Amino acid sequence: MVILGIDPGTRNCGYSILKKEKNSLVLVEAGLIKIKEKILQHQIMELVEGLDTIFKQHTIDEVAIEDIFYAYNPQTVIKLAQFRGALSLKILQTIGNFSEYTALQVKKAVTGNGKAAKEQVAFMVKKILGIKQEIKPLDITDAIAIAITHAQRVKVS
Amino acid sequence: MVILGIDPGTRNCGYSILKKEKNSLVLVEAGLIKIKEKILQHQIMELVEGLDTIFKQHTIDEVAIEDIFYAYNPQTVIKLAQFRGALSLKILQTIGNFSEYTALQVKKAVTGNGKAAKEQVAFMVKKILGIKQEIKPLDITDAIAIAITHAQRVKVS
Repeated sequence: MVILGIDPGTRNCGYSILKKEKNSLVLVEAGLIKIKEKILQHQIMELVEGLDTIFKQHTIDEVAIEDIFYAYNPQTVIKLAQFRGALSLKILQTIGNFSEYTALQVKKAVTGNGKAAKEQVAFMVKKILGIKQEIKPLDITDAIAIAITHAQRVKVS
Repeated sequence: MVILGIDPGTRNCGYSILKKEKNSLVLVEAGLIKIKEKILQHQIMELVEGLDTIFKQHTIDEVAIEDIFYAYNPQTVIKLAQFRGALSLKILQTIGNFSEYTALQVKKAVTGNGKAAKEQVAFMVKKILGIKQEIKPLDITDAIAIAITHAQRVKVS
C-alpha cells in the first residue's frame, strides 16, 4: 500500500510517499510543493498542479492530510483553509477520499507525546524509518509523520 | 456575456446567473446549492457537484465570488474558507479565472452604501433588475448582488 502524507502550508506544502508492506515501512519520496505565485488563484493552481504531478508519478492508494487548526493570524488561517479546500477537492477527484489527523494525533502517534516539538517529530520519523541522513525542512518530516500515523492505523493484507 | 455570481456559505451557497448585454441586465436563474451532507469531504463534493451542474446547464463566461472575511467563530471561518478553496479550484478548472469582491464592494456597488443591510441589498437588486416578486432567502439576493457588481465593472462589446 502506498500512502501519500500531506502537510498543507501557506508557503510550502510538505508531502511524503510511504510504502507500507506487511512488515516494513519504506520512504519512497518526500519533498515540498513550493508556492511561488503571488495571487491566490494562481497559488491554488500551483499547489494543485504540484499535487497532480505526484499523482501522475506514483500510484497512490491512500491519502492522509493534516487537519487545520485555528492559528492566531486570521489572514493565515483563511489562506491555509482555502488551500486545504482546494487540495481536498483534488484528492477527492483523484482518489475519492482521504484521512485526516490533527497535529496532536500525529505527534502522539510518532513520539508518544501530543505536545512534542517538531524537532522531536523529525528525530522519531528518521528512527522509525531507519534513515540516517538529515531531512529538512521540518515541513517534510511533518508530512512523513502524517503518513506514518496513517500507516499505523491501516492494515495491509 | 453570462456572469455567474457566487456567495459561499457553510450551509447554503447562493448563486445567480446574469446575462449582460449592451443595454440590459437580465436574471437568467438564481438559487441555492444546499449542503445536506454531514462530513466535510462529502460536503465539499456536494458543493462542487452543485457548481458543476450549473456549469453544465449554462454557458458561463465569467465568475464573480464573494471574498471571505474573518467572522467571529474560527470553526465557521475554517469551514467556509475550505469550501471557498474547493469552489475556487472547480472554477479555475472550468473557466480559468474568477473575480473577487468584498462584501463592502458589493454593498457599495448595489446600494451606494458599503454598510447597507442585507434587506436593502435585496431591495436594490430587485429594483436594478426590475423584478417585482419576492426573492428569498437573502443568500440568493446576495449572490445576485455579486453578479451585478461584476456586471457594472466589465464592458460588453
